[in-house]
Amino acid sequence: MNFSYSEKVNRLQQELTQFMEDYIYPNEHLYEDYVNSQGNRWETIPTIMEELKEKAKEKGLWNLFLPESEYGAGLTNLEYAPLCEIMGRSHIAPEIFNCAAPDTGNMEVLVRYGTEEQKEKWLKPLLAGDIRSCFSMTEPEVASSDATNIEASIVRDGDEYVINGRKWWSSGAGDPRCKISIVMGKTNPEAPKHEQQSMILVPMDTPGLKIERHLPVFGYDHAPHGHMEITYTNVRVPVSNILWGEGKGFAIAQGRLGPGRIHHCMRLIGSAERAVDEMCRRVQQRQAFGKKLSQQGVIQEWIAQSRIEIEQARLLTLKAAYMMDTVGNKEAKQEIAMIKAVAPQMALNVLDRAIQAFGGAGVSDDTPLAFMWAQARTLRIADGPDEVHRAQIAKLELKKYSEGVLVHGRS
Amino acid sequence: MNFSYSEKVNRLQQELTQFMEDYIYPNEHLYEDYVNSQGNRWETIPTIMEELKEKAKEKGLWNLFLPESEYGAGLTNLEYAPLCEIMGRSHIAPEIFNCAAPDTGNMEVLVRYGTEEQKEKWLKPLLAGDIRSCFSMTEPEVASSDATNIEASIVRDGDEYVINGRKWWSSGAGDPRCKISIVMGKTNPEAPKHEQQSMILVPMDTPGLKIERHLPVFGYDHAPHGHMEITYTNVRVPVSNILWGEGKGFAIAQGRLGPGRIHHCMRLIGSAERAVDEMCRRVQQRQAFGKKLSQQGVIQEWIAQSRIEIEQARLLTLKAAYMMDTVGNKEAKQEIAMIKAVAPQMALNVLDRAIQAFGGAGVSDDTPLAFMWAQARTLRIADGPDEVHRAQIAKLELKKYSEGVLVHGRS
Amino acid sequence: MNFSYSEKVNRLQQELTQFMEDYIYPNEHLYEDYVNSQGNRWETIPTIMEELKEKAKEKGLWNLFLPESEYGAGLTNLEYAPLCEIMGRSHIAPEIFNCAAPDTGNMEVLVRYGTEEQKEKWLKPLLAGDIRSCFSMTEPEVASSDATNIEASIVRDGDEYVINGRKWWSSGAGDPRCKISIVMGKTNPEAPKHEQQSMILVPMDTPGLKIERHLPVFGYDHAPHGHMEITYTNVRVPVSNILWGEGKGFAIAQGRLGPGRIHHCMRLIGSAERAVDEMCRRVQQRQAFGKKLSQQGVIQEWIAQSRIEIEQARLLTLKAAYMMDTVGNKEAKQEIAMIKAVAPQMALNVLDRAIQAFGGAGVSDDTPLAFMWAQARTLRIADGPDEVHRAQIAKLELKKYSEGVLVHGRS
Amino acid sequence: MNFSYSEKVNRLQQELTQFMEDYIYPNEHLYEDYVNSQGNRWETIPTIMEELKEKAKEKGLWNLFLPESEYGAGLTNLEYAPLCEIMGRSHIAPEIFNCAAPDTGNMEVLVRYGTEEQKEKWLKPLLAGDIRSCFSMTEPEVASSDATNIEASIVRDGDEYVINGRKWWSSGAGDPRCKISIVMGKTNPEAPKHEQQSMILVPMDTPGLKIERHLPVFGYDHAPHGHMEITYTNVRVPVSNILWGEGKGFAIAQGRLGPGRIHHCMRLIGSAERAVDEMCRRVQQRQAFGKKLSQQGVIQEWIAQSRIEIEQARLLTLKAAYMMDTVGNKEAKQEIAMIKAVAPQMALNVLDRAIQAFGGAGVSDDTPLAFMWAQARTLRIADGPDEVHRAQIAKLELKKYSEGVLVHGRS
Repeated sequence: MNFSYSEKVNRLQQELTQFMEDYIYPNEHLYEDYVNSQGNRWETIPTIMEELKEKAKEKGLWNLFLPESEYGAGLTNLEYAPLCEIMGRSHIAPEIFNCAAPDTGNMEVLVRYGTEEQKEKWLKPLLAGDIRSCFSMTEPEVASSDATNIEASIVRDGDEYVINGRKWWSSGAGDPRCKISIVMGKTNPEAPKHEQQSMILVPMDTPGLKIERHLPVFGYDHAPHGHMEITYTNVRVPVSNILWGEGKGFAIAQGRLGPGRIHHCMRLIGSAERAVDEMCRRVQQRQAFGKKLSQQGVIQEWIAQSRIEIEQARLLTLKAAYMMDTVGNKEAKQEIAMIKAVAPQMALNVLDRAIQAFGGAGVSDDTPLAFMWAQARTLRIADGPDEVHRAQIAKLELKKYSEGVLVHGRS
Repeated sequence: MNFSYSEKVNRLQQELTQFMEDYIYPNEHLYEDYVNSQGNRWETIPTIMEELKEKAKEKGLWNLFLPESEYGAGLTNLEYAPLCEIMGRSHIAPEIFNCAAPDTGNMEVLVRYGTEEQKEKWLKPLLAGDIRSCFSMTEPEVASSDATNIEASIVRDGDEYVINGRKWWSSGAGDPRCKISIVMGKTNPEAPKHEQQSMILVPMDTPGLKIERHLPVFGYDHAPHGHMEITYTNVRVPVSNILWGEGKGFAIAQGRLGPGRIHHCMRLIGSAERAVDEMCRRVQQRQAFGKKLSQQGVIQEWIAQSRIEIEQARLLTLKAAYMMDTVGNKEAKQEIAMIKAVAPQMALNVLDRAIQAFGGAGVSDDTPLAFMWAQARTLRIADGPDEVHRAQIAKLELKKYSEGVLVHGRS
Repeated sequence: MNFSYSEKVNRLQQELTQFMEDYIYPNEHLYEDYVNSQGNRWETIPTIMEELKEKAKEKGLWNLFLPESEYGAGLTNLEYAPLCEIMGRSHIAPEIFNCAAPDTGNMEVLVRYGTEEQKEKWLKPLLAGDIRSCFSMTEPEVASSDATNIEASIVRDGDEYVINGRKWWSSGAGDPRCKISIVMGKTNPEAPKHEQQSMILVPMDTPGLKIERHLPVFGYDHAPHGHMEITYTNVRVPVSNILWGEGKGFAIAQGRLGPGRIHHCMRLIGSAERAVDEMCRRVQQRQAFGKKLSQQGVIQEWIAQSRIEIEQARLLTLKAAYMMDTVGNKEAKQEIAMIKAVAPQMALNVLDRAIQAFGGAGVSDDTPLAFMWAQARTLRIADGPDEVHRAQIAKLELKKYSEGVLVHGRS
Repeated sequence: MNFSYSEKVNRLQQELTQFMEDYIYPNEHLYEDYVNSQGNRWETIPTIMEELKEKAKEKGLWNLFLPESEYGAGLTNLEYAPLCEIMGRSHIAPEIFNCAAPDTGNMEVLVRYGTEEQKEKWLKPLLAGDIRSCFSMTEPEVASSDATNIEASIVRDGDEYVINGRKWWSSGAGDPRCKISIVMGKTNPEAPKHEQQSMILVPMDTPGLKIERHLPVFGYDHAPHGHMEITYTNVRVPVSNILWGEGKGFAIAQGRLGPGRIHHCMRLIGSAERAVDEMCRRVQQRQAFGKKLSQQGVIQEWIAQSRIEIEQARLLTLKAAYMMDTVGNKEAKQEIAMIKAVAPQMALNVLDRAIQAFGGAGVSDDTPLAFMWAQARTLRIADGPDEVHRAQIAKLELKKYSEGVLVHGRS
């Protein structure tokens, strides 16, 4: 057991931090300013993004996320975690390093389950940062927290699959660079429960795919990225677009969501660190009732409690990453469920305290806090709501007892 | 002691509820649709508002908020509370009944401290719903939770006062109908701490008054109402525009904020009731893991806990209103501080549970929940942050002990 | 609606408070001292108790608890609530006023469902404070939170009933003055679920009734009162000992527990007030890190939060009592469930903060806090655990929606 | 970074767990039975203890706690943590392995600061488990959370020191085997604040040392160990009994409390694991409202939340231990403060849920839960109350900002 980062990780942390200092924090506001200055918020991409992506590539800070793959930077989950955390400190950072959801999850799916042809056509430009992608799984009509509820249909018709369904929260589908969607639906409603679903590649320009509207998050439209509601009406794609095979949708989803969940958690820790950072700076400057806010006992409790919650969540994230690397995503599922149930609420707690310390500035866009809060709030829902993760944790815990393997003194 | 509403209140509750059913809930979306359809979100007012204001006047549901005054509907705070609560169920309702902040507080100031001329000029059109108003107290540069920090200057120069300062969170100043601002600033920095401040009437079209920008709340701009940052640069108004007199600013603020605080609390209870309402409907319909959400134990805990928190907050609000009516705002200050510290957090808790029950729909604008959440969040800051109210509650509590009047068995 | 106590209640509050000051607080320690000085903690009763009971009778502060009955003091639940609260400030007080559990519940059962003969024999000496009683419902082998689980058998055999079963948490059965037990068991396991149970009177000296042991609460034995485990082995009583009739056990339990639950809540509010009282005195005296504890922001939060939680719980208790008086115990069931789910946790919170403010003294017996805490902790379990009450609150809430009576704007 | 225990630790975990299974869990009740069977609870020691101590020595499971010392088992803090955790699963275990407070802390003081003579006389028999010891620091008259408040005096008079003062919470002083006390007091009230205090060895049979009474913890007397109030009246010991030197008391206290704090935390994790263990077994067996408790959603939340809190607290404890081993106790002070603020509350949460799952059995002595809860509750006070640790965490956090070393992107 050892709680120190390796030298390699230390070096990458420093490089990344330096990049954040030099290029990202000073330019954060340009993003929003650019979008606000456009007539249509959904049509172009802030120029700063493509510029910084080039710089990140130059510095070798690119595609850091892919473990166990020739395509990525060769980092383990445990090595990636502290880097991903740093990216989480700024909402524009992950894309700049080509480490943003949902592309990361989609690339992982293509790496693991894609055919050579699929990789050539979609993985390559995604890895290069030339295009972006979306993931169309969640549906408005059913509780998608239970993935077996999903109702879109994927029906084979000769050499094609015909897709029909209504999806929402297809994040990133608003981006003009978004070229490909991974759609989940039922190929066989008669199959066993976890083999009814399949995943299929649908180019965004396929006839019948229609973006209906964007869904705001606490008033933020997240343009031009966006969270889109999409209808698929008799959308036809060649059979070669299926991923892995019919009936593999649920299995892919499980595989896709494990790393995705933990990436979210890593970034949430970064958001929380940013919040502590902003809060500490603020309370050192601000005066009320005759002393600095930082000297008020209540404010000190906020800072201490935030530090405590962050440290614990970080350690749990790192442990889950370590388990994924050593025993595999499946064996690590209790740890993954735990961190997914912990990190969003932790970040919300810390962000909320920082917002309170800032007063009016905290709820506005003068700090990144409100924006980060809204994003963190969605993560108590996305990729499985907290309560579903907790139910799973309990079931895994209770299983230890029903299996009769446990003696009284287990630790 | 008696926990039943009077017949008069029961009747008004029914009328108001009917009005909400008939005219407000079905039209809620028109408001946002209208604003979204305009080229400039800040220039016109959704037509539905003026129409419904006329209807409310016709039904006699107008200016219900003013206690102890010939100008209002003749209701006590205790009578107004359950009505104001109903208005809180929809974000567009309070304005329709001419019971919206900051106008209510400003009208109350004019009723209590205005000269006949001031009343004629500003109170009358406000009561008629012909114009709107804003309140310019909070400043970006200082912690306004401690009102003695406020730094804008109001300097007499002959028959005029000259005002200089930067204010923000002047809510409603974005509204094209907003014609008058009540500004707080220092007339005498040398006076005793609580007599340095004054309040003064500044017409919005006075030269030197400049709206710098609007402040979003989370991602909501609240257009066309808005929360504005305003600079006052050598703004000149006649000396007759002073309210009550020089040095009375702090006293007016105290008087103004008492009722304003409790109105917010009443509305927050309405928001929370709306959330329970939406949540219960949702969980009765939605299915996951083989049963209705309403049959899941965890969801039931959310509903029960919400009901419990609402009931307690409502009772505390009503008691505070009763105290204001019977012993006066000053004697009721511990109760007012308590309810102000309780109601926003209670509403946030309930809204958050409802959001979680809705999943993705909850954070978007498909329900009123996220919007209401953002508004409630500001109320843990506005009119004094929670922690300042709690400090005051503690001081009032401890005072009972230092005064030596307490014997061991106090109850 | 009116939040002031009546003059009658004000007068009784003063008399009771005076009695507490004069006779109870100064003698609290005598109780424990007496028990500790005895060779056997279970054999005699602290002499101070009988002395003070006589004094309470003299002052007319006796049997205040019985609403709607010629036997009691003629107070409504709403009138009794603030008095019962005062008694809750000291663990020895309720018995002194003959208002202690389980006697109050048992007397209420006898008043409502007892025959004249049963009243003469058991109610009369209970009302006079000459004997005490216990209630044998809960069983160690089943989850008694679901009363239909109860398994003791009551079988008719000629003119007698024969009782067999194991009961525990029969509180007060340790008291040498305890002469009668009300036992719940099944007379007909084939009857509909809520008609299988009956209640029956069993004198403590009936052959076959055996006290097996006492159950401590945390480390407190509560001697000589005690919480006893009792076996009933072929215990025979005349058929006339049945209460109301066969199959009425569940109905009596429901009726018995309503008032009992709210009495507990009233007393818990008194305990919490005592805790705030002790805490405030303490923090005004104690110094750390250069200032009085009462000047530390964190301590102030504890005091404020305690005051807030108490006020809300008190109002909810009073409202529940009002409902019981005006619409009846059955219609008031959501309110009763709410207060039962709120008050114990509230008292635990407040007591815990006071304990923390006292440090080492708080967990010991130098203050009444730890004792009160342990007692309050049992009340999150006794008379239905919190989670069962919350499930019931949710079901009552959801019922409003399934009945289709609700329109969108309910308040 | 690596989250696996070493092979050595794995082996010791297994041995210790086996020992717990074979000898400790089955004999836990003998301890209390023995004490209860004695006329005087304070005079003898349960025979099972000396028997099991011999067995533990035989197995080499002895003095595992001492890092960096020839006297101990040669384990680092990080290696000891998971073993100490296992001991925390039973309240009788730590003493059996000679790893119980306050002996461990006292032995550590003697190892680090004792003279050869002091070691020979007191350390040796302590290491052998032949005698026990107490630590007399806390005083009833002052807030000992601020150690500079301590008022006992240690005055040099020729070749002797004369000690006067009143101490309490001298844990273990009730044990008939307790032979030595380490007393903290002021040798020089004029010295700089942190150099006024000294520590000195006082044999328990020194004239003038009087045990006044024992202090219960939530009704538990913890006999024969006990928490004693002791008066020192003109107690004389030779000058050679001073530890390290005059004025070193505060420094020793700091050094002593670091490891002591983390040992408490490790044991608390064991207590919490025991609670989850008991709770899971219980809810798998118990039935209510038509299904097993383990199938109820609310119970599942308790289990999941408990697992989550334990995992996080364990990781934080391990990290703090790692820091102590690698950068030293002083540099690890934020981590130590964090875990001390986290672990007791975590254990209380988990124990409380388990108690609730057990109902009546949970608050009694039929499970170890209530006993463990009471012990855990004292640890939110002992060795510094939570709020003092949090204040220190905040100050250390804020220090990073005032030192000007931080740039915007710190992680």
